[in-house]
Amino acid sequence: MPSLRRDPTSDSWVIIAEDRALRPSDYQVASDPHNEVTNCPFCPGKEHLTPPEIRAVRDGGRPNDSNWNVRVIPNKYAALRVEGVLSRRAAGIYDEMNGIGAHEVVIETPNHHARMHEYTEAQMESLLRVCHERVVDLSRDLRMRHVQLFRNHGPGSGASLSHPHTQIIALPMVPSWVKRELICAKEHWDRTERCLFADIVDQERRDGDRMVCENDRFIAFEPFASKFPFETWIVPKEQRADVREVNRSDLAALAQIMRDSLRALAIALNDPPYNLMLFSAPFSAHDAELVANTAADYRWHIEIIPRLTIPGGFEWATGCHINPTPPEAAGEYLRKALMGAR
Amino acid sequence: MPSLRRDPTSDSWVIIAEDRALRPSDYQVASDPHNEVTNCPFCPGKEHLTPPEIRAVRDGGRPNDSNWNVRVIPNKYAALRVEGVLSRRAAGIYDEMNGIGAHEVVIETPNHHARMHEYTEAQMESLLRVCHERVVDLSRDLRMRHVQLFRNHGPGSGASLSHPHTQIIALPMVPSWVKRELICAKEHWDRTERCLFADIVDQERRDGDRMVCENDRFIAFEPFASKFPFETWIVPKEQRADVREVNRSDLAALAQIMRDSLRALAIALNDPPYNLMLFSAPFSAHDAELVANTAADYRWHIEIIPRLTIPGGFEWATGCHINPTPPEAAGEYLRKALMGAR
Repeated sequence: MPSLRRDPTSDSWVIIAEDRALRPSDYQVASDPHNEVTNCPFCPGKEHLTPPEIRAVRDGGRPNDSNWNVRVIPNKYAALRVEGVLSRRAAGIYDEMNGIGAHEVVIETPNHHARMHEYTEAQMESLLRVCHERVVDLSRDLRMRHVQLFRNHGPGSGASLSHPHTQIIALPMVPSWVKRELICAKEHWDRTERCLFADIVDQERRDGDRMVCENDRFIAFEPFASKFPFETWIVPKEQRADVREVNRSDLAALAQIMRDSLRALAIALNDPPYNLMLFSAPFSAHDAELVANTAADYRWHIEIIPRLTIPGGFEWATGCHINPTPPEAAGEYLRKALMGAR
Repeated sequence: MPSLRRDPTSDSWVIIAEDRALRPSDYQVASDPHNEVTNCPFCPGKEHLTPPEIRAVRDGGRPNDSNWNVRVIPNKYAALRVEGVLSRRAAGIYDEMNGIGAHEVVIETPNHHARMHEYTEAQMESLLRVCHERVVDLSRDLRMRHVQLFRNHGPGSGASLSHPHTQIIALPMVPSWVKRELICAKEHWDRTERCLFADIVDQERRDGDRMVCENDRFIAFEPFASKFPFETWIVPKEQRADVREVNRSDLAALAQIMRDSLRALAIALNDPPYNLMLFSAPFSAHDAELVANTAADYRWHIEIIPRLTIPGGFEWATGCHINPTPPEAAGEYLRKALMGAR
């Protein structure tokens, strides 16, 4: 059973995936691109290599048949386990709980070599609808307090399989960085009675030099204090803290701006490795105080960080990143990339 | 001029290194190991390729001669600049200051291929004395509020040059993660009137299964909530918040336990890439409130994180790391590695 342990020096939780218990020699495995394709458990025809599916989009056929377009499965090497009762214990001065949670994989396409920025709009919309459904479903589990959706793309991004997939992890606590963002948003609201993200959207549209693109429901831009070169955020124009509340038209507009943003990055940076992350307010009644004002003061959004630089000791010690490309310059490159593509 | 920008969604600062202004194509340079040695600006005889030295340990000769053993220079590609007056400004809703600070490089040895875990004790002590001196000296600059010492070793660690070196960055603010650790330590003190790190040292010595080694002044162990596999902390047994207060015997004992810890990691993990980071209380009168109790409630220490796993979207979004090797297992591997080496 995995466990969750609290680091008392930073008030943040760590998942100790005890079941895997990697030995020193396990960290020295080099990947073989040929083997990777022939042995890919996410390709059609390999459904028997994964746990049975939770949900799929397919044209007829039966569950776990190979004629799917999108397929959701439990992660075979789950960081957390869904079975059991959450229990907490003290370990001397330390705090620990058993590793209850859920860890799902959304296999986005049967095509091993597809790239998200080349998906059709219909394909992207269908994928976003499935992701949205899974987030809503996982949030119904009363043990869970936060759902984190993310996507690792390319070498150096932390992806262990290259077949295009998104992961969703449901957690029995609100992680420290999510909490921190909620606290910052709340402090801004307490001072101004305005949503921090509304202010950001206004300022980015006014300044313009960090903008990448926009449509009637979203803007995509390089944040003023970009931690990473070409870091790109997608923020809705409408005030909503919780992504579960979006409707089909929102998802259609999101599909469009995600494709444009990812295409701009792919053109400007030659298909760079990246992480894509969804941020949304926690939903649990456990966190009433934290969630109380979020409807007004927080806003769900997406952050994309291309993995072009490697954070070293300075960044890991301080949390202060060194970004060698000003976001205004990055914005210009990305706008040009999109203009060239049209 | 570089600038420091505050991210309002996380209350943390980012360094925008405007002078470098890397273009998209600058991120696609592959390194050539042969070129790296022949063009290394840190090797003896290449002193003209670096800015003039600030400090050196040498047997006779003159500054910037090539007969040095340890050499301290300003970083040619400094993240921050030492010249100027710190000024702050609003950029709409955002906060910005000019990039005042210092960025020094301690070239640890003339030998390009040396590894820190193979340094002699005398060599390690001499190096630590130079580092200590530089931290003390940089802290005298009243514009500075924190000094961060760190070391990146090996591919994937963020090191841009492989010649063994340590970096020291002096900052005009207390970084968010450092602040967070101070706040956690203060909360523990407020509740218990005990230093959090004293409690950790006691518990680790009592539990024993996460210990790596100890001497009369320090312990080295795998923290209970290790974020990374084989993460190793070195904590002094004596209560001192500020590393500037250590004496020569402390540095000698530190040299010994650093060599042992790094040797254990090198043996168990076949010379892994890692980041080594010094944590010490900020010293500025600006931060009186933050610093007030630190003498009793905080303790300086060193953290070493081997870079065996690649943090992905989950970790970057939540700050919650997934560690596939329990620290108790890592402790056992490292103790065995040291036993075999003796």
